[in-house]
Amino acid sequence: MQKVFINKLKDFVGQEVTLQGWLFNKRSSGKIRFVILRDGTGYVQCVFFKGNVSEEIFELADKIGQESSIIVTGKVKEDSRQVGGVEIDATGLIVIQDAKDYPITPKEHGPEFLLDNRHLWLRSKRQVAIMRIRHRIIKAIRDFFDERDFVLMDPPILTPNAVEGTSTLFETPYFDLGNAYLTQSGQLYAEAGAMAHGKVYTFGPTFRAEKSKTKRHLTEFWMCEPEVAFADLNDDMDLAESMLEYIVQTVLRERAEELKILERDTTKLEKVVRPFPRISYDEAVEILHKNGVNFEWGNDFGAPDESVIVQQFDRPVMVHRYPAEVKAFYMKRDPENPKVALAVDVLAPEGYGEIIGGSQREDSLDELLSRIKEHNLPQEVFEWYLDLRRYGTVPHAGFGIGLERTVSWICGLDHLREAIPFPRMIYRNTP
Amino acid sequence: MQKVFINKLKDFVGQEVTLQGWLFNKRSSGKIRFVILRDGTGYVQCVFFKGNVSEEIFELADKIGQESSIIVTGKVKEDSRQVGGVEIDATGLIVIQDAKDYPITPKEHGPEFLLDNRHLWLRSKRQVAIMRIRHRIIKAIRDFFDERDFVLMDPPILTPNAVEGTSTLFETPYFDLGNAYLTQSGQLYAEAGAMAHGKVYTFGPTFRAEKSKTKRHLTEFWMCEPEVAFADLNDDMDLAESMLEYIVQTVLRERAEELKILERDTTKLEKVVRPFPRISYDEAVEILHKNGVNFEWGNDFGAPDESVIVQQFDRPVMVHRYPAEVKAFYMKRDPENPKVALAVDVLAPEGYGEIIGGSQREDSLDELLSRIKEHNLPQEVFEWYLDLRRYGTVPHAGFGIGLERTVSWICGLDHLREAIPFPRMIYRNTP
Repeated sequence: MQKVFINKLKDFVGQEVTLQGWLFNKRSSGKIRFVILRDGTGYVQCVFFKGNVSEEIFELADKIGQESSIIVTGKVKEDSRQVGGVEIDATGLIVIQDAKDYPITPKEHGPEFLLDNRHLWLRSKRQVAIMRIRHRIIKAIRDFFDERDFVLMDPPILTPNAVEGTSTLFETPYFDLGNAYLTQSGQLYAEAGAMAHGKVYTFGPTFRAEKSKTKRHLTEFWMCEPEVAFADLNDDMDLAESMLEYIVQTVLRERAEELKILERDTTKLEKVVRPFPRISYDEAVEILHKNGVNFEWGNDFGAPDESVIVQQFDRPVMVHRYPAEVKAFYMKRDPENPKVALAVDVLAPEGYGEIIGGSQREDSLDELLSRIKEHNLPQEVFEWYLDLRRYGTVPHAGFGIGLERTVSWICGLDHLREAIPFPRMIYRNTP
Repeated sequence: MQKVFINKLKDFVGQEVTLQGWLFNKRSSGKIRFVILRDGTGYVQCVFFKGNVSEEIFELADKIGQESSIIVTGKVKEDSRQVGGVEIDATGLIVIQDAKDYPITPKEHGPEFLLDNRHLWLRSKRQVAIMRIRHRIIKAIRDFFDERDFVLMDPPILTPNAVEGTSTLFETPYFDLGNAYLTQSGQLYAEAGAMAHGKVYTFGPTFRAEKSKTKRHLTEFWMCEPEVAFADLNDDMDLAESMLEYIVQTVLRERAEELKILERDTTKLEKVVRPFPRISYDEAVEILHKNGVNFEWGNDFGAPDESVIVQQFDRPVMVHRYPAEVKAFYMKRDPENPKVALAVDVLAPEGYGEIIGGSQREDSLDELLSRIKEHNLPQEVFEWYLDLRRYGTVPHAGFGIGLERTVSWICGLDHLREAIPFPRMIYRNTP
């Protein structure tokens, strides 16, 4: 008998097949036992008719518990009412293991219980859908850059220096070399890569030991960071915009079923097409004031401020030219107004807030040296980075897109903890 | 004037274009100045004829230093003698920055000096070629699994437990939860994923705080780990074999130019086609004895042993069924001989040794509990992992492929330090 995956059943209508998987759900109705089988590629209803199978199998189909591992044999029947358009007229059932008392039942469970059982929770229909969308987003991001001749440059995770401030660093003893820190961003390394390859991107885990308990923070999250030589802030915004459109439209097309499982309002996502609105920080502040928000020029936007701004638009908003004071030392000042940095944040709609942060980088050695002094950073650990301005410096720009925030937005999740297989938060590093 | 990348110049023969990049090399010959420009997508010779350009530009083309950032304007001319088949009849030259005393000259440098300047060394022709091949290998691995319906499951980096022994762990304080460890392998998490999705793979950085100074060890390296439900050791070997063939043949086809730059003997790689030889550990020991190696049954193979074994074959060798004693607790014993584990190592030819390690996993709860006791492992940290055997356990298998070892083999490198952008070793965590 041929072993078949559920997502290929349509090609086997009328044939006898063997399916291997887990009992997702079951119900009984007189002379019929329904077993919903899942195998990772999909779900299919297997129907056991009394008389068609032995008394023993008929009883077994009723007795075995949720998440039992089973092998079902049967004939593939077309049935347009079923998900996937087929069901199985079952003739055989082998139980590999009858699972007793599976902890996650179809009833409601609290988030802490589910997180404690994340290794099992991942099997639920909703979590399976989210992970399949996460995977497709990752692939879309990589495809986007690969198709445009970007070279992937994996930055180091263990680093001797901090990029985004020293207060949120995880550190580990490193042999006889003192401490090493877990990277907060691969950007500085991406810049070295851009000088070698012209266009590069990084894609890997990054870490922030932030004592934030919000639903928008993980201590460990994945980030993709493209960096482009001979690019300015406008090029950077063009790139971010094209990439986001590409990601969202790809997921809409190729993960429609999963978005349906999540009950995502896809009309909101369909609007994510270029051009996105581009407003300056000054204009964003004006919007806040017009909407009665008490906000002082020079501050960074908080989540409630971002909400007010994005409510004005039906697609992601690019806010550029932030006060230099609130931005990182490596961002280039606007030559037309040195009070602002050539930075851009992309805010996702529907209250999801910042998913991308980018900038044109300071390409002048002297300016960069001044910034390092102003920020009281230790120059010696940045000597290698300064070399990029000593030897063939060029205008360049890039950004970082937070993967879990993007997954969360596209899936319409309430909390980042569902956007990554095994979330790490201030109060959790298990399982 | 249209800005063009070097790898697209062939489409612009006869046209005036603008190129942006860095001065890779130069030479003078009477009334001609040759400037080799690189822009990350390739290299092109720009020819400045005295009289065709101003005296100032003619002098400039001679004066500026290696790695100066420049913009060259000129006409694209077909020239089959040149790499890429074109050269530039230059009409303009703008120097963004004249780089003085670039540290890495065409002469020989020692490895420590080059590693200290890794951020610049990455610009050299050889390093650019290696990184382009690394990228293509990563893409080939991902494509291979994506095309086969595997779901990507990023495992956590910060973990509460050790997989490959506790002596080689990096650790970091984790808020109020004690210490967290940097992952040595995502496998246990991949197993949870396989029970949810059937077929999964991980791909991320892993860490071993090994005090090894060999050319085959990095403290931080990338690993891809597929895991398949309802698979046994033979399926595992089939998968590893197909994947390696796919990777090598893809790189041969799509990175031929880069392999040429590295002077790689590609005839050796062309032989990497299925089927690969599969020999048992016992047979491998026999080979060692026949070749006069003093080797005792029960030990693990060292690098010199691996060399003798692979010398017998012209393609990767799969050695299976190792003494259970030298293998990890989670590997399933061979029912036909409980002294050996259903493990497989894939050894690369030409002395590159182990690049893949895999096994069928122990799927029996009772057996796994015994193994955990035998290995003196703390059962409580593995409770979640044991749950995978409590709730719908199935036979399953997987493997891990070390990215840098694979890159090193395919590129023909002497040392892993060239196979990753910013290598981390016992004595180095900079730049």
